[in-house]
Amino acid sequence: IVSKLPNVGTTIFTRMSQLALETGAINLSQGFPDFDGPQALREAVARHVMEGRNQYCPMTGLPSLRQQVAAKIARSYGVQRDADSEITITPGATEAIFCAVQALIRPGDEAIVLDPCYDSYEPSVELAGGRCVHVPLALPDFAVDWQRLSDAISPRTRLIFLNSPHNPSGALLTRADLDKLAELIRGRDIHVISDEVYEHLIYDGARHASVLAHEELYRRAFVVSSFGKTYHVTGWKTGYVVAPSALTAELRKIHQYVNFCGVTPLQFGLAEFMAACPEHVEELPAFYQAKRDLFCDLLGGSRFTFTRAPGTYFQLADYSAIRPDLDDVAMAEWLTREHGVAAIPVSVFYQSAPKDMRLVRFCFAKREETLRQAAEKLCAV
Amino acid sequence: IVSKLPNVGTTIFTRMSQLALETGAINLSQGFPDFDGPQALREAVARHVMEGRNQYCPMTGLPSLRQQVAAKIARSYGVQRDADSEITITPGATEAIFCAVQALIRPGDEAIVLDPCYDSYEPSVELAGGRCVHVPLALPDFAVDWQRLSDAISPRTRLIFLNSPHNPSGALLTRADLDKLAELIRGRDIHVISDEVYEHLIYDGARHASVLAHEELYRRAFVVSSFGKTYHVTGWKTGYVVAPSALTAELRKIHQYVNFCGVTPLQFGLAEFMAACPEHVEELPAFYQAKRDLFCDLLGGSRFTFTRAPGTYFQLADYSAIRPDLDDVAMAEWLTREHGVAAIPVSVFYQSAPKDMRLVRFCFAKREETLRQAAEKLCAV
Ligand SMILES: CSCCC(=O)C(=O)O
Ligand SMILES: CSCCC(=O)C(=O)O
Repeated sequence: IVSKLPNVGTTIFTRMSQLALETGAINLSQGFPDFDGPQALREAVARHVMEGRNQYCPMTGLPSLRQQVAAKIARSYGVQRDADSEITITPGATEAIFCAVQALIRPGDEAIVLDPCYDSYEPSVELAGGRCVHVPLALPDFAVDWQRLSDAISPRTRLIFLNSPHNPSGALLTRADLDKLAELIRGRDIHVISDEVYEHLIYDGARHASVLAHEELYRRAFVVSSFGKTYHVTGWKTGYVVAPSALTAELRKIHQYVNFCGVTPLQFGLAEFMAACPEHVEELPAFYQAKRDLFCDLLGGSRFTFTRAPGTYFQLADYSAIRPDLDDVAMAEWLTREHGVAAIPVSVFYQSAPKDMRLVRFCFAKREETLRQAAEKLCAV
Repeated sequence: IVSKLPNVGTTIFTRMSQLALETGAINLSQGFPDFDGPQALREAVARHVMEGRNQYCPMTGLPSLRQQVAAKIARSYGVQRDADSEITITPGATEAIFCAVQALIRPGDEAIVLDPCYDSYEPSVELAGGRCVHVPLALPDFAVDWQRLSDAISPRTRLIFLNSPHNPSGALLTRADLDKLAELIRGRDIHVISDEVYEHLIYDGARHASVLAHEELYRRAFVVSSFGKTYHVTGWKTGYVVAPSALTAELRKIHQYVNFCGVTPLQFGLAEFMAACPEHVEELPAFYQAKRDLFCDLLGGSRFTFTRAPGTYFQLADYSAIRPDLDDVAMAEWLTREHGVAAIPVSVFYQSAPKDMRLVRFCFAKREETLRQAAEKLCAV
């Protein structure tokens, strides 16, 4: 058969995790913790598995879990989103993004992505028959270049992807950014997919400017988040998407044929844990900031240069002073093979990365011991 | 936004399960057991959740689970399918079907479905820009009408859906059917998606004619199955798809952006249980045949007429002698509301059902007590 995605290989996350496994390197590449989710959460899931919560749940997700999400949104952002008509549980944020794209994009439509961006956006658009227009974020801060974004809008533009906190840079959008975007698309037939899977991983006292709390933008938006990221259980592949009821209705039509429903005992466990332990999300910034700071403090002794990530559990590092001769894909491989630390090259998040970019991404969602061992190796580079 | 699926509402399965819940009716509608999966399987999953198997697994599925699937296929059908290049674990059979369709269908392509058929096939084709051509199965046995199928093939045909054992009728395809299909598509650019989620639910000593064991057809096929159906855990939403390596490679490109990967602790638990208890699948026919026979024996005392289902955990029943005035949607509602037993109307599986069809579907994947209570109510109708 002729490939639908001729340019697609295996994702960089799969490839680097595999290389780390093969070489025995410390895996700071793919974004997942090397510690476990909360004991009480895992116990709740184990109990629900044993007590028979193992058959189909509702297509839209367990009502009690949707209610907990609504409660978390109200606490975090001071807005009410309706558990029944605006919140849908999905088998991971990736599926939520995929379904939202299918709901919005038709053949010939354009979607704007801000490079560097997560690798699932473009294939999702292409599978819907659309085309991505790439607008690079402005360096060195990965800020939105409003002039370039505005110039990229055409009569075919139907969708703009946002991602804050931003993977791979950790950059944050501000409320002022959201205002500018709202102004830019006002009166136009353009929607927004806001990938906020790192919404609770924000440091130095900053606050997340969620599209959920921006009334004008929210009316055009699908806002996506992830229980996997927030509760340290990426392998549970459970996420959610929040959108106004008319958009939610269209997303659900698609979701019900892409997957039908999520995993029942995980949803029971998550609902129970969120009710019992709402402070979990409030403790996350300090929890992860300590990891970021430990890693960055130790990396200060290396020849990598960096500014601390404002959000996410990723830290970018510039290796110009070390191996300026290597492009970042070669550098990530070299670090893995020769120095025992796997990283992700940043250029793979671009359609065309700046030629002189010398950045790799490290995931610091790791135990202190792992971070110390990795930093020691990186300081020896 | 303009709907991508304007004709789609909430699935009949969701609606009938909801009505059963609201009315307190015994729910023989949506296909899921009211008993639990094997204790040892649930214990294994609970242990893996507690022991930290909670981060991303490989995009293609856990290698040990793919190996167990290959071993099950070898035992069941006497053929070797490669765990690495031919088997992919998916978040449910529905996602496997969706991804296979996306891999095969381009705008303007046609897919042939044999009505009555499962409700996700057509929207999956439509989302890929294709169109379904509906060929009704021949009544009363739901056998393939080869002449009509042959007549339905056009130069645009790219895909034919098979489903055996067949939902909702329980009908089985034979090896001779597979031979005929292979002959029909020989030399043409047509592929097959074979939905075999009920592969182990076959009665009266019959054997399943799997596309996996038909070398010629398999070369053009995606064969889909479901751990949820086989291990009584529909809420785990875990399935798999087997296809020749070139087809598998295209499916995986899509799967990695639709969902990325399945749920890790479920996959560990399933792999462990399948290794420890290969006899589970061999015991399934007797286990479910006893339920079918109990239900049918009791229903013999009612005014419904039926022939016993050769496969699946669904039993069709004709209500012409009871309420010939009601169409089947009205009948299913009436049974639920007035007689306390929820069923699925069969016409919803058709593009256009025969006008005089008076069939409802009951799920007999239920405890003996449930089946007795339901049959008692149905005998009083
Ligand atoms: C779904 S695998 C990728 C995990 C992730 O979000 C990342 O590493 O960027
Ligand atoms: C995914 S919900 C439908 C379950 C099922 O296969 C059926 O009832 O036919």
